[in-house]
Amino acid sequence: MIERREPSSSDVLIEIDYCGVCHTDLHFVNNDWGITEYPVVPGHEIVGRITEVGTDVSRFQVGDLAAIGCMVNSCGDCQSCLDGNEQYCLKGFTATYNSPIEDPGGLTFGGYSQRIVADQSFVLKMPENLEITGTAPLLCAGITTYSPLQHWSVNAGMKVGVVGLGGLGHMGVKFAHAMGAHTVMITTTPDKGKDAKSLGADEILISTDASAMSKEAGEFDFILNTIPVDHKVDPYLDLLKVDGTMCVVGAIEPLNQVNAAQLMFGRKKLAGSLIGGIQQTQEMLNFCGEHNIISDVEVIRMDQIQDAFERLVKSDVKYRFVIDMKTLATV
Amino acid sequence: MIERREPSSSDVLIEIDYCGVCHTDLHFVNNDWGITEYPVVPGHEIVGRITEVGTDVSRFQVGDLAAIGCMVNSCGDCQSCLDGNEQYCLKGFTATYNSPIEDPGGLTFGGYSQRIVADQSFVLKMPENLEITGTAPLLCAGITTYSPLQHWSVNAGMKVGVVGLGGLGHMGVKFAHAMGAHTVMITTTPDKGKDAKSLGADEILISTDASAMSKEAGEFDFILNTIPVDHKVDPYLDLLKVDGTMCVVGAIEPLNQVNAAQLMFGRKKLAGSLIGGIQQTQEMLNFCGEHNIISDVEVIRMDQIQDAFERLVKSDVKYRFVIDMKTLATV
Repeated sequence: MIERREPSSSDVLIEIDYCGVCHTDLHFVNNDWGITEYPVVPGHEIVGRITEVGTDVSRFQVGDLAAIGCMVNSCGDCQSCLDGNEQYCLKGFTATYNSPIEDPGGLTFGGYSQRIVADQSFVLKMPENLEITGTAPLLCAGITTYSPLQHWSVNAGMKVGVVGLGGLGHMGVKFAHAMGAHTVMITTTPDKGKDAKSLGADEILISTDASAMSKEAGEFDFILNTIPVDHKVDPYLDLLKVDGTMCVVGAIEPLNQVNAAQLMFGRKKLAGSLIGGIQQTQEMLNFCGEHNIISDVEVIRMDQIQDAFERLVKSDVKYRFVIDMKTLATV
Repeated sequence: MIERREPSSSDVLIEIDYCGVCHTDLHFVNNDWGITEYPVVPGHEIVGRITEVGTDVSRFQVGDLAAIGCMVNSCGDCQSCLDGNEQYCLKGFTATYNSPIEDPGGLTFGGYSQRIVADQSFVLKMPENLEITGTAPLLCAGITTYSPLQHWSVNAGMKVGVVGLGGLGHMGVKFAHAMGAHTVMITTTPDKGKDAKSLGADEILISTDASAMSKEAGEFDFILNTIPVDHKVDPYLDLLKVDGTMCVVGAIEPLNQVNAAQLMFGRKKLAGSLIGGIQQTQEMLNFCGEHNIISDVEVIRMDQIQDAFERLVKSDVKYRFVIDMKTLATV
């Protein structure tokens, strides 16, 4: 039996409705990064109803639709926290799962669960108008793509590329389109073109078509790169305008070749970005509410998780699995 | 005999006093990049007196101290040229040497010469108060380091690192110091520390000292990286603050390992930059005039150039060779 912390005066208790399945969950379950502490309860794309609020909780009421993403705490004192960039907390944020925690001790447990307790300051309000099954992935795939698009001020005057059409990429296309940019899906797979257009892409660029890539050289203001593994970034850097930026959000690993000349001949930037701050995450959810943006999901039962993990490895999902957490009680 | 173009109505003729020796000159002489067209006359750090002006020349008079850097022309019509970024001309700028030119045909010839003819719009005014021998390298080593420091708004509130102490690095230290930044020389070589302090560095950080590097992690707003060859950039990215930028100005080649996680966990940027635009180059020269900044040079005779090239390969110069072009007549 896993101990759960009793709600403190500033905590809320959430009865979880849905939890998204992020590739990170699988990495933790398999200990791919060698940092997993067992037992691990994954899940950081959490949406549900608040059933209890502490005496000092002012932002939420019982019955509110709420959400928790990748973080449940941070130091609150460092420059990053003061700037609202809790994701870059200089002491390291407390992750929603498998992260050391003082109360009740041990490690945090995530959203593959019926309930979760968290401090109100790391809890988000979910707009009530959205179809709830598609909202959970906004908390990781959503903010991971929204944050850099917003940070680099993507707008209607810009041509924006999204590389890779998966859980992250499909949200990137939706957001770039909703922000008004001329949005180009950049993919190796022609078959994904039709899907990308239905998600909001204005154009499809097949990255294996040298002639098409050459025609688009120097045309992009910003590129969001969601490829989750090492890859050659040069062909994408070549697409950027002078002073353009490509932001990597997928590949948490060494990129084995970056041509510095590509950066120099055009003052280009290769950047990275990690989820988003709490305030920005709330802004993203509000933006989704206004623009009716949700993730395209396949809802599964808890007992289908192993199959889902296997299909995830094969990218066989459009575009995110979401667990109906009510099914956990019956497992 | 090499044909020289007759000055047109918008040209000036410069009697060259000094020409700096850039490593690029050696690469061209040796055809290291496989693009040299012979005969090649190198030299793109040129300073001298104007001895002739065309009828339409308004910016210069005979007798003016003038300079030419790496470019002598660009298309003038593309967005980069319109933005004053001729160095990123989308059609490619006309380099000062070994670049195709319509008048008189053939290739441009550079500053290892007694005279040069160029359109007034690519000619700079050199402040008269500077010691002339140290001014030539400002036209390449100077602008290459000034431009990114200025583009990324380096100022008194910032901690700035300069990696590598050579022709570029020593100018980077002088500029960062003059812009008011807390300037840190980052080098593998403890011996260079004393020199760096005399150039204006507030601190020396030895990059092979893991403990010192660890202490400085997350402390830098901006890093100017002048290392001229492939190297691991991760240890330097680790020094950057959240949202910090490292700009590469030395290594025109593939960087064989860039850790994307370093970029992601701090929204950091790896950028590149190439010389600077003409207006910015003039601003840099004016800045040098105001702050009495010149390059530290060793003046050589034209007949010493082979020896200088050999010493350049061994980094055996503090910090730039400059040829006294009056000595060419006696070779």
